[in-house]
Formats: sequence, C-alpha cells, structure tokens
Amino acid sequence: MRYDVLVDVRLRGGIADPAGATIERALPALGYDGVVGVTVGKTVRFTIEATDEVEATSRSEDLCSSFLTNPVIEDATVTVTLVDDGFDA
Amino acid sequence: MRYDVLVDVRLRGGIADPAGATIERALPALGYDGVVGVTVGKTVRFTIEATDEVEATSRSEDLCSSFLTNPVIEDATVTVTLVDDGFDA
Repeated sequence: MRYDVLVDVRLRGGIADPAGATIERALPALGYDGVVGVTVGKTVRFTIEATDEVEATSRSEDLCSSFLTNPVIEDATVTVTLVDDGFDA
Repeated sequence: MRYDVLVDVRLRGGIADPAGATIERALPALGYDGVVGVTVGKTVRFTIEATDEVEATSRSEDLCSSFLTNPVIEDATVTVTLVDDGFDA
C-alpha cells in the first residue's frame, strides 16, 4: 500500500525565528498593517510504501526525527493519507 | 476580528526540487527504502486583523502573491481560521 505523507515542521516556541521576524518588520512599510506573529516553517511531502497506516506512520515519524528535523529546536506533525490510485511506483 | 493564516507554499509541478531530490537519493543508504516523490515546501503562519473572513482571505492572498511566494515557480494555498480568543495584539 502507498501512503502520502505530509511532514509539517515548525520551530518550537521560544526559538528565534529570524525569517518570520524580518517579514513581520517589513510588512507595515509595504502597506500591510495588522499582521503579527509571523513564523516560517517547512514541509516535506513524500510517498511511502508500507503494509498499513500504522507502519507508514511509524516509519515516517522515525525518518522525520532522524533526518528531516532537528528535534531540539523543531516540532513536526506527520499526516499520513492512503493513496487510492491503482498504480505502483 | 483576528484570523490565523496558514500559507502553504509548494513548488509548481515540473519545477526542479533539488532539496527533495537530495533527500530522496540519500534515504536508501540511510535504511529507508520505499520512499519516493520527496518534495520540500515552506509554510508561513501569521495572525491578521480584518473585519471578516473574506477580507482576511483577500488580504492574505494579496500579501502572499506579492511578497511571500514567487508565483512563477510556486503555488500557495491560503487557509484562514478565526481566532476565538478574547485578547487583542
């Protein structure tokens, strides 16, 4: 079975977010007032081959904490969805 | 009214994704087989002040196409959610 995986990576609370702070500081001069709390994160999407959703989730979370994120400063949310197509990669 | 906005930015189909390709190429050697189609995107989250959801969405989409993304190579999805707390920033 194939599963689409979305890994949503955000900086943990309290960790400096210079990209977000720079955007937030620039916006008023660009004509956008009333925008606060800007944070920038990243996403990793992939398709994983697994026997069931439990295995797909556990392998993805493992992969995620080992290579895709830095768990010291980042939090990740893993979302797994079954691919209901008929083809195989 | 305050709205939480999530901007999910992905490369358009056909645009080279070197970060995703590098991850995908590295995974088998790291013990993760069966992972294909790796793509890397970014997210921008912020809180916007607007009179209603329509205004929040249109200002966020405008902001997004003007400054947060490069519409030539990126696609963005904007999700707006009302903040139901009692405080004001």
